[in-house]
Amino acid sequence: MPDCFTRIAFGLGLFALSTLPARAETPTSIVKQAPSSAWQEIQSQDLLVLTLYNNRVVVIQLAPAFAPRHVQNIVALSKARWWDGGDITRVQDGYVTQWAGNPSRKALPATVEAVLPPEYERSDTGLSLTPLNRPDAYAAQTGFTSGWPVGTDGHTVWLAHCYGMVGAGRDMPPNTGDGTELYTVIGQAPRQLDRNIALVGRVLSGMDALTALPRGTGDMGFYRTPAEFTSIQSARLAIDLPSSARPRFEVMKTDSPSFIQYLHARANRTDPFYVRPAGGVDVCNAPVPTRPSSQN
Amino acid sequence: MPDCFTRIAFGLGLFALSTLPARAETPTSIVKQAPSSAWQEIQSQDLLVLTLYNNRVVVIQLAPAFAPRHVQNIVALSKARWWDGGDITRVQDGYVTQWAGNPSRKALPATVEAVLPPEYERSDTGLSLTPLNRPDAYAAQTGFTSGWPVGTDGHTVWLAHCYGMVGAGRDMPPNTGDGTELYTVIGQAPRQLDRNIALVGRVLSGMDALTALPRGTGDMGFYRTPAEFTSIQSARLAIDLPSSARPRFEVMKTDSPSFIQYLHARANRTDPFYVRPAGGVDVCNAPVPTRPSSQN
Repeated sequence: MPDCFTRIAFGLGLFALSTLPARAETPTSIVKQAPSSAWQEIQSQDLLVLTLYNNRVVVIQLAPAFAPRHVQNIVALSKARWWDGGDITRVQDGYVTQWAGNPSRKALPATVEAVLPPEYERSDTGLSLTPLNRPDAYAAQTGFTSGWPVGTDGHTVWLAHCYGMVGAGRDMPPNTGDGTELYTVIGQAPRQLDRNIALVGRVLSGMDALTALPRGTGDMGFYRTPAEFTSIQSARLAIDLPSSARPRFEVMKTDSPSFIQYLHARANRTDPFYVRPAGGVDVCNAPVPTRPSSQN
Repeated sequence: MPDCFTRIAFGLGLFALSTLPARAETPTSIVKQAPSSAWQEIQSQDLLVLTLYNNRVVVIQLAPAFAPRHVQNIVALSKARWWDGGDITRVQDGYVTQWAGNPSRKALPATVEAVLPPEYERSDTGLSLTPLNRPDAYAAQTGFTSGWPVGTDGHTVWLAHCYGMVGAGRDMPPNTGDGTELYTVIGQAPRQLDRNIALVGRVLSGMDALTALPRGTGDMGFYRTPAEFTSIQSARLAIDLPSSARPRFEVMKTDSPSFIQYLHARANRTDPFYVRPAGGVDVCNAPVPTRPSSQN
């Protein structure tokens, strides 16, 4: 791993942990037993609450550290109630569910930037990486930083297209994603999209409201008729909701001993079902633990 | 890659292909243009046709080359109409959909073996590997053989738990999977299950009938009440159906030039959307092309 990251990394990957005494701990039991110091509250201005007309609620954590201008647009769009009455227009099996956009080409609110920089990767400055130390087909190195799964080449770092990650759809030119159209990954991680499109967050809860939908039968899983759409009642930041209706979530700190123990257990399953622990895990197969805050 | 495989392998991985001239071909266009010699008809005794009570049809290709005794049981169970009236009992978001099993512990048909060998991996003898030549978090080497995605340690070879692969559920002891209970992967490839459970095939069509279902709210995604089940009308081998009702499918030969070209295009997307081709692909992110036979 290149120097610029090594200086700030914890240096505790799976390799170092393979010398820990074997215990019959499962990823689940480690998460359950993690002390409160292993958890961090997600700020309510980073939670986007999507309420569908079927009354299902999807909570999305935004990632301003990775796509600040996209997130700024998303915040502005939610405050302008842009998505209210919009639709889930595309469900492509094993790939993505996608919603809203601007099909009628209505004017964007004045607070929204029409042209954004790509924001597909960022400098690693100020980030602390917990490296996975396992080979990866797409990136020189993968790991976790600030609660997110990432790839890195040792200089820049980017969010990985894992299950449940949320991105900003775009047309062919890289600067056409304005944040009005969002998608989430509902199948095998399409990592070929890493550094080709801006990831802006991830689904924290209600994922099944986006996955257990009929697949679109048009090209690329678009629905053929508006009658097939699932519509959006509202999309609001948690901070803009009355405090009684405000969801609260915590994410496990990816530089905590608990998370490192969790990674080790994901890669080396010793619970009774397993006859042969894998000895490795993919960055998208070790989802960062999140949970509703206990104060809820 | 160890000798025993090298002798029979094609030796044409992505590395060798990176010297091919760049063309704006997409995986889709390569599949469309593949000559008929790149395709192989799947034998109708290897197709299991699951018809649900909602009239959705799921076609599964069995993998007797990898789990012969499990497949033998599945064949016997279909001929005994074992699954007819059974249920989809579990849908765990991002993980698996699972059906039937033997909840009432009824006696197995005499043609079915109650105790099977694990069949989690097999010798590589007689198999020709198209290696992926990309790093993998789980296996020393990955690639494709006889139309299937596999991992290998150079001596044994095993099917990889990719999206849509079908396995035989089991209890804790490794010899408890009798083939009555099957599951398919509906999220990120749970490769930690490789070599821990017998994979017996893959879904060829109707996958969305297994993925676009309400998630179970009980432990591990099991439905809490039978009212939530989706029930199975029938499960038959294609060969046991009247010829007019018999589905026919082809799989791309994974040792064909077309497939190698497809792999290269999956790893190096040059279609206009991509600003930065990944230069690699995961074994589960390059699904082997299959299609209904044109003679249908």
